[in-house]
Amino acid sequence: MTEHTPVTVLGLGPMGTALASAFVRAGHRTTVWNRTAGKAAPLVEKGAVAPGSAADAVAASPLTVVCVIDYDAVRAIVEPVAESLRGKTLVNLTADTPDRARELAAWAAERGIDYIDGAIMTPTVTIGGPDAVFLYSGPEQVYESNRSTLASLGGTGAHVGTDPGRAAAYDVALLDTFWTAMSGVVHALALAEAEGIAGAEIAERMQGILALAGQLTPELASDVDRGSYPGDDSTIVSNAAGMEHIIHAARSRDIDPSVLEAAKAVADRAIKDGHGQDGFSRLADTLRRTDT
Amino acid sequence: MTEHTPVTVLGLGPMGTALASAFVRAGHRTTVWNRTAGKAAPLVEKGAVAPGSAADAVAASPLTVVCVIDYDAVRAIVEPVAESLRGKTLVNLTADTPDRARELAAWAAERGIDYIDGAIMTPTVTIGGPDAVFLYSGPEQVYESNRSTLASLGGTGAHVGTDPGRAAAYDVALLDTFWTAMSGVVHALALAEAEGIAGAEIAERMQGILALAGQLTPELASDVDRGSYPGDDSTIVSNAAGMEHIIHAARSRDIDPSVLEAAKAVADRAIKDGHGQDGFSRLADTLRRTDT
Ligand SMILES: NC(=O)c1ccc[n+]([C@@H]2O[C@H](COP(=O)([O-])OP(=O)(O)OC[C@H]3O[C@@H](n4cnc5c(N)ncnc54)[C@H](OP(=O)(O)O)[C@@H]3O)[C@@H](O)[C@H]2O)c1
Ligand SMILES: NC(=O)c1ccc[n+]([C@@H]2O[C@H](COP(=O)([O-])OP(=O)(O)OC[C@H]3O[C@@H](n4cnc5c(N)ncnc54)[C@H](OP(=O)(O)O)[C@@H]3O)[C@@H](O)[C@H]2O)c1
Repeated sequence: MTEHTPVTVLGLGPMGTALASAFVRAGHRTTVWNRTAGKAAPLVEKGAVAPGSAADAVAASPLTVVCVIDYDAVRAIVEPVAESLRGKTLVNLTADTPDRARELAAWAAERGIDYIDGAIMTPTVTIGGPDAVFLYSGPEQVYESNRSTLASLGGTGAHVGTDPGRAAAYDVALLDTFWTAMSGVVHALALAEAEGIAGAEIAERMQGILALAGQLTPELASDVDRGSYPGDDSTIVSNAAGMEHIIHAARSRDIDPSVLEAAKAVADRAIKDGHGQDGFSRLADTLRRTDT
Repeated sequence: MTEHTPVTVLGLGPMGTALASAFVRAGHRTTVWNRTAGKAAPLVEKGAVAPGSAADAVAASPLTVVCVIDYDAVRAIVEPVAESLRGKTLVNLTADTPDRARELAAWAAERGIDYIDGAIMTPTVTIGGPDAVFLYSGPEQVYESNRSTLASLGGTGAHVGTDPGRAAAYDVALLDTFWTAMSGVVHALALAEAEGIAGAEIAERMQGILALAGQLTPELASDVDRGSYPGDDSTIVSNAAGMEHIIHAARSRDIDPSVLEAAKAVADRAIKDGHGQDGFSRLADTLRRTDT
């Protein structure tokens, strides 16, 4: 395919809109469709085409990208237009679980649709620019033939495996890190404010402490790979005491402590299991439920 | 005080040991004590002095640094030696809550002990080197007269306020971010492993996604300061759907989903309150419990 392969984008939430804009800017004939009409208007102004039905949208291009809230929404959109997709390529950039990605790949295969599952690892503002990050998985050859078109979305795209669930597996693990960390950020902002510290006063230090967690990550990962969890620098008993202070401080300011309470319960379980002198990486093992 | 003020360190866990080593290396006459005997031996080899009692340890220096597991441990150590501390300076580098820091400052004031509360924001390996970060709060003049001695601990020290609870307030907010993020890291490593992705394969991307959370932090902080939570780029409804996929993926691999379930419950509460179209920063407000 050339740089100017026509492309269809189904779903015009913040991310679908960003994807479609990037295709338009890169010079693709871009066809868009959204369940709720009206969202296409700004894109049509920029040069996109917006037919009235998903079937017509899909028929307009050899490659369709779908990006909606979840796989149920994907299926609600693509199942009725399966015939129009036959012989074409569907790239699904909706976030969901590895299992559902595999199910959708199987569904597509049965209908003669080439299917690539993908995950977008960066926010809408990055799309079309150098900082966007996309992960793709599925048949190598399907990925290769659409690669230059997908490059119009900007940044870096990596093919992480032929198993269609692999991009989603990376996605859930990375978003697990992301959303848990983001929950910590908003909680810490609430706690700081209750203690009379403005967000602007502490934001840079919070960014620094997240960078520190990032720096520790390769070592935690290596512990988990080796199944060895040394507590020489800091033990789970000490970490749990630290969490307890935060929970106590949050409670005394009437800030919901439930997220960190859940995290501390995992640490407490490790301690109860006799691993209190291990390092924090041990909790990756504690989180595996074999008995509940 | 000169660079070579004698210093006493009470508590020889991983952190207390790192602090004492840094003082020894910087040329201070360093006196150490730990509840459980024996931990002083490696420090004595390096040149530290280890008397048999905390009272003798405290009597040996004008400045005592205490760093143990929590404030109960601090009180268990310093209350019996209050008389020996009178007229001297106590710097408490134990992590705990702002309220407890204020209580201890009041206790010290009543006994004629100059008191500075501090927080260590970086791991033991950084102590004595350029990357160590310390926050201090309490009377400006007490801080200033001990500043050059504390500089032997390395890195950067910042006096964040005269309220003795202020360093602890920063500490709990920053550690809130840190421990919540770290919980996300170990959970994601467990999930990745269950999906056949080794820690070594995903660690660098996890570091990248934590950096992304860091980059978003100043904007979240500014939303919280303004009390305005725009959802233009991404809404809580969409964020909650993302969390749900991760919880689903974790459950299907028998990985304890409780931390992210607690985080999603906060998002669900915001949605129920009619804020589903706001951005994630709104959750700092939702976390304030006014009615429970
Ligand atoms: N926004 C980001 O920064 C970001 C970053 C990385 C990944 N992602 C991922 O990108 C995907 C899309 O996210 P988004 O930010 O654009 O917003 P979103 O709120 O997750 O999705 C909105 C889109 O889903 C459609 N939709 C919802 N339910 C539907 C249904 N039952 N049938 C058909 N369509 C339905 C909406 O159509 P209507 O307009 O008709 O409601 C709209 O097009 C998600 O998987 C998200 O995790 C987003
Ligand atoms: N390690 C790190 O990377 C790190 C980083 C930043 C901040 N910190 C903070 O530094 C402080 C010390 O941490 P740590 O890593 O050294 O290990 P820790 O396990 O938190 O503390 C161990 C020390 O506490 C003492 N202790 C515990 N209970 C006691 C009691 N009831 N009475 C008297 N002493 C008691 C221990 O004495 P025994 O030997 O007799 O048990 C030992 O000296 C904590 O507040 C921690 O949050 C640590």
